Formats: sequence, structure tokens, C-alpha cells
Amino acid sequence: MGVCDSELADSWALYQRLREQTPLVQCITNYVAMNMTANVLLATGASPAMVHSEAESGEFAALASALSINMGTPSPHWAAGMRTAIAGARGAGVPWVLDPVAHAATAYRRGLVAELLALQPAAIRGNASEIMALAEAGARGHGVDTRHESQDALAAANDLLAHAEGIAISGRVDRLLGRSTTDTDPITISLAGGSAWQPRVTGTGCALGALIAAYLAVADTPLDAMVAAHAHAAAAAEQAERTAHGPGSFAVAWLDALDSVDLAGFLSDRLAPG
Amino acid sequence: MGVCDSELADSWALYQRLREQTPLVQCITNYVAMNMTANVLLATGASPAMVHSEAESGEFAALASALSINMGTPSPHWAAGMRTAIAGARGAGVPWVLDPVAHAATAYRRGLVAELLALQPAAIRGNASEIMALAEAGARGHGVDTRHESQDALAAANDLLAHAEGIAISGRVDRLLGRSTTDTDPITISLAGGSAWQPRVTGTGCALGALIAAYLAVADTPLDAMVAAHAHAAAAAEQAERTAHGPGSFAVAWLDALDSVDLAGFLSDRLAPG
Amino acid sequence: MGVCDSELADSWALYQRLREQTPLVQCITNYVAMNMTANVLLATGASPAMVHSEAESGEFAALASALSINMGTPSPHWAAGMRTAIAGARGAGVPWVLDPVAHAATAYRRGLVAELLALQPAAIRGNASEIMALAEAGARGHGVDTRHESQDALAAANDLLAHAEGIAISGRVDRLLGRSTTDTDPITISLAGGSAWQPRVTGTGCALGALIAAYLAVADTPLDAMVAAHAHAAAAAEQAERTAHGPGSFAVAWLDALDSVDLAGFLSDRLAPG
Repeated sequence: MGVCDSELADSWALYQRLREQTPLVQCITNYVAMNMTANVLLATGASPAMVHSEAESGEFAALASALSINMGTPSPHWAAGMRTAIAGARGAGVPWVLDPVAHAATAYRRGLVAELLALQPAAIRGNASEIMALAEAGARGHGVDTRHESQDALAAANDLLAHAEGIAISGRVDRLLGRSTTDTDPITISLAGGSAWQPRVTGTGCALGALIAAYLAVADTPLDAMVAAHAHAAAAAEQAERTAHGPGSFAVAWLDALDSVDLAGFLSDRLAPG
Repeated sequence: MGVCDSELADSWALYQRLREQTPLVQCITNYVAMNMTANVLLATGASPAMVHSEAESGEFAALASALSINMGTPSPHWAAGMRTAIAGARGAGVPWVLDPVAHAATAYRRGLVAELLALQPAAIRGNASEIMALAEAGARGHGVDTRHESQDALAAANDLLAHAEGIAISGRVDRLLGRSTTDTDPITISLAGGSAWQPRVTGTGCALGALIAAYLAVADTPLDAMVAAHAHAAAAAEQAERTAHGPGSFAVAWLDALDSVDLAGFLSDRLAPG
Repeated sequence: MGVCDSELADSWALYQRLREQTPLVQCITNYVAMNMTANVLLATGASPAMVHSEAESGEFAALASALSINMGTPSPHWAAGMRTAIAGARGAGVPWVLDPVAHAATAYRRGLVAELLALQPAAIRGNASEIMALAEAGARGHGVDTRHESQDALAAANDLLAHAEGIAISGRVDRLLGRSTTDTDPITISLAGGSAWQPRVTGTGCALGALIAAYLAVADTPLDAMVAAHAHAAAAAEQAERTAHGPGSFAVAWLDALDSVDLAGFLSDRLAPG
């Protein structure tokens, strides 16, 4: 059984485990994606908890199964809540995911993302442009355009493995970098699939960051969690596309499909070496 | 006509009155449930107003028909807005509902809920675990697990009648405690129904708190309002389940059904003594 | 070709241009409508960015194609972000839209709207009651009821042309006031259409303000942008109504229809002199 067959088998097992364990996933995410993120977690079988305030986010993180931090609509109050939550998670050994939405767009975001990057996320998820800009953040610190394909960001993602155990570049082909076991070199899993409607519905990408967190709670490695989360989302997106008539009905059908996903069928012919 | 026949007749009349009067319901609720809550109120015939800031929440509450306070994503700024709104409501004789989401989870929430509990809500709505923890809040002040059935919380709900005129334990069977008239002992109405999809869609429970507030604006007693709100939600959920294929399509169908609900049909065979 | 034929031709051309250029629309909007607003912009072909914090809203606004300010759930922190964003937009020549939701309801809102009104929005969008109250804001400064028809607000809208180049009164018949070219007198375009479900779904009006901003980025005049936005929304609403069974399925079908709208068909028989 090769590397990718192994990851495939893991995704199927992780999906079963997620449904059984219903991990509690704390999310500090943007206002736009909050409802979708909670519904995606519920549909996949996890238990969402949106707990953001500095007054309680650290205490709660220590009790959570995993933590997802998304900086889509940041502000100083929310950044304080993120820092407190991450400290609580790290103190309790709870893994956390960083989704650095549009982190290169403003000076404020560039400062915030540099700070969060230093706090050892288990996994980082972004689109190709975000991953490329993040690898350059220390050196250049400015925005890049958003039309890159995931393979353009492979070198950048490799560099970012200095900051996180797993790097997910979401796109038409997802590229997922990390180690299969702690004593081997990093590998890249490429996962083609999903639907062109996904980027036309707000929050589908942000929910994926939270879904990685949910799978982190039941996986042995961040790589396994990222593969399972992207496979689950992409398989459901393909199912949803069959009945969708536009972005509105796609979003509805995607939530339905996340619940009743045929993940085994999807996995059987999609995973291939990156 | 027995007690429960009377409540039944009231629910049908209240539903008609809600559609005619379109009460203005001020909601200070969590970020996740805000959109669903507004849509549920609009679908049922009420007029939602999300007004949360301390700068205006008290002035507005005095003009509202009812106020709904949900502490799902609390923070100090929002808590200040809640206090101001409740003071405005109380000063003007406007009834308010407390939905103490996950109030036992952190020290911050435990402090906040103790404070709000002392401000005389007309009704309190929660799941069994929340109601049980709330009754114990003064004495023990910590979390309990969330897998209780509503009947496990009946004793706790009875104790909470010292703090509010009506207590709603939402669940597979809803248990609604309060007085039919001011000079009688409290009774419990049990209402079986609804759909297993409800807890799989975020905000369906939180919207129920706001729906109680809407019915408070047109009801004689909190008990009547709680029965009507739960019956309306459950009847619509059963209608929605017939066409739903998962949590996404259930949410859509539920909003449709809240608008075109066959409440009379639902009520005719469901209300029974608790 | 008369005035209205000219506006009609412009709307069709603007729709094509919007799809090609995918303008970046910064939105500072209320919590309730944020998700719907982002999805409406994505469905119509624009690119939404919810960037609200004072820490970055001004820097971002200078990079945006247009800015939409909606005061549905205002607070001092968000008002600070609005001011900063508007200053950034004005400094960079980026047009902005004001949607003064319920601005007459409280003293806090009345103060805020007076301040924003002085900052030269390109367009103002509201329902008839909001537009009427806004014209009177300097003199009387209190609320009015919300049951006016758009034609009741024509005189008020005309007065408001002292503050903005375009005034949109959304309603069963939309009334859109502004200049076809800079050296002509203001005209009023009346646009009948849409669906009675629109006011039954939260955020449909607020999203219209953001859609005007998207069209401002590709239009020659605010009048053209307002006509195109209202025509696009109304055409999609009529398509959606054909398959909707209630407010939930209407919202889904509306998003689908915004993407695949038959705008040419709608325009061919609807525009008429106001």
C-alpha cells in the first residue's frame, strides 16, 4: 500500500470517527462565514462553538477538541480574543488552525498574521495567493493578486512548513503538505475535485478551515486531517452540483451532501501523488 | 374544556393575532443565529429589530413590543447593551425573554447569567442541560453535559419559576411551565413533535427564544406565549421534514413552513397534560 | 431614443461590464445582512470585502472599487470604522453608498446619520419612510411610520439631492432620482416589479445598497448604477417567485436568479418615465 492509498484509508476512517466522536470545535471566525461555518460543522457531524471574547475564549479553548482561527473580519477586540484562545489551546495541547484570509490586504492584517504565525498553528489553510503572500510576509509584506493556481504556491507552502505541521492550499486542485508520520519527509497530496460553485458562495472556504480543525481532533497528523476535510468538502460539492441551479441552491445542496456524503466513492478514484 | 384544551385554543388565536399585529421584536442575539432569527420572525409574521449597542438599546427597548436576549456569543460590549436594553424594557413594561446559551461553559458566562437572571425575565428558554445548570447556578456554578432529556429538567425548571413567570425546556418533547392565570398553581404543558433535523441546523433553538418574545407581545401569559411559539416551530418542522433531504434543505423548508404553517392541524392532536 | 430608453440600454451594458470587471466592493453593513450581502454580490458577479475595523477600513477603502455603508446595527466602534472608510474612499475618489437603516429610530442613529449625510455619498438608498425622515432629519429628527409608498417620498428625495447625486426609494415601485448627465436637471426613473417575498426575507433591501455600490464602480452616473441595481434585483426576484414556496425557498431562488438573470427580458418592457 503506497503513501496515498494510506491517506485514502485514513480519510475514510477519520470520517467515521468524526461522526462518532462529534468533536467540539471552537471557532473565532469572521462575521460573514459564521453561520455557514456552524452549519458545515453540524452537517459533517462535529459540534461548533463560536466563542470569541477575550473574557472567555482562553478558558473555553482549553476544553475544546480543536480551535479554528479565521481572520476574515479582524479588529483589535477580536484579535485579543484570538490571542487568548490560542494561548489557552496551546496550554492544553489543543491543536489549532490558522486561516489567514486576505492577510496581505492591509498593514493591520499583515501585523496580525505575523503575530499569529509565530504561535505554532498545527495547520494553515488558504488559497494559493494567500499562501504565497504568507511565505513572503517577513520579507516583503504586501499583497499579491488572487488568481494563482494551487501549484504556483507549492514552494511557498513548503517554506511555511517551518511554521506549521500542515499547509493546505485550497483550489480547483487542493494541495496538502505535511508528514505522514513524524519521522518522514513532508509529502504533498493533490486532490482534484469539488465544484466551480464553491467560490461563488461566501464562507465555503472559511468553513473548510473549521472542518480541518474538526478532523484534527480525530486525526493522527495534520496531513490526514487536511486530506479528510478537503475530500469531504469536495465530495459533497460534486454531489451538490448535480442538483444545483445556481449559487443559492448549491449552498443548500452542499450542506445536505456534507451530511450524507459518499466519501468512500469519491476517495476511491481521486487521491493521487502530488 | 380542560386546561390543555384552553392552551390549545389560545395558541391558535395567538397565531392569528401575531399575523395581524406584526409585533416589533428587539433581539440581542449571537452572531451565528442573527440571520436565522430575523428570518424566522419575518416568516412567522413578526417584525425583527436587531439593536444591540449600549448607545441605543435601552431607548429602543422602550418602543419595542418585546425583547429577546440570547447570550450565545457574549462579550463585555454586548453585555452592556443587554443590560441597557433590559433596563429600558423593564422601565416601559416590555416583556423580555432570556436564552442562556451554554451559560455554564465559562466563568464569564456564569457571572453574566447570574446577573441577567436577577432582572426578572418574563420567560427563560433553554435545553434540558441549560435549565438544569441554571437552577444550580447559585449553588454549584459549573457546566453539565448536554444530553439530558427535557423531563430530567422538570424539577430544575420548577425551581426557576422563582425567577421568571415561564420556563421553556426545548427538546424532543418540549416542557413548558407557567401559570394559566395569575391566581392558579403553575402547570406543565408537554408538547411532542418537531424534527430531528432541528438541532442539526444552527440557530433553530435560538430563533425559538425570539419567537417566544414575539408571542409574548400578543399573549396574556408567558405560558401561552411559550406554547404557541413551540407549537408553531414544531408544526413547521414536521411540515419541512416531509420535503427535506438534509440540514440545508430542512432549514429552507422550515422557513417556508413557518409562513404557511398548518398550526390548527398540528394542535388538534398534540397538546396533552405534562 | 428617449431618456428612459437610454437608461435601459445603460443597465444592460452595465450588467455585462459588472460581470467582466468583478468590482471589489467594500461593505460595512449590519450583522444580520452580512452573509446575504456577500452572496448577492458574488451571485451578481462582484467581489465582496467586509472590512469594518477602524484599524484598516480607510486603507482598504482607497483600494476598493466602491464602498457601501449600512447602519443597520450601529455601535461606536463600527461608526468609527465607517468614518475611517469614508475618509479613505473620498481621498481616493472611490464612490460610496449610504443605506440609512431605521435612522430615525433612536437619538444615536439620528446623530450618526446626520454626520454621514454630510460626507457626500454618491447615492442614498432607503425605503419611503427612511427617505422621508432623512429629508426632515435636520428639522425634526424623529421617527416616522414605515408604511409609505415610494411616491410619497418623491419630494423628500428631491430635497436630498442636495446631499447626494442619486437617491433610491426602494419599494413595490422603485423611484430612482438623479441626473442622466452632469449638465441636465434631475429626473426620476420609476421601476415596477420584484416580488412581495422580498421584504419577507431579511437582508434583501440591505444587499441592494451594496449592489448599487457594485454598479457605481462600472457606471457613469449614480442614476445609472441605481437603475441597474434595482432592475437586476427585481428581475431576479420575479424569476425566483415562479419557483418559491415561501420566504426560505424564495431567498435561495433569488440568489440563483441573480446569477442567471434575464435582465434584457425584464428591461424590455419595464422602464417608464417616473
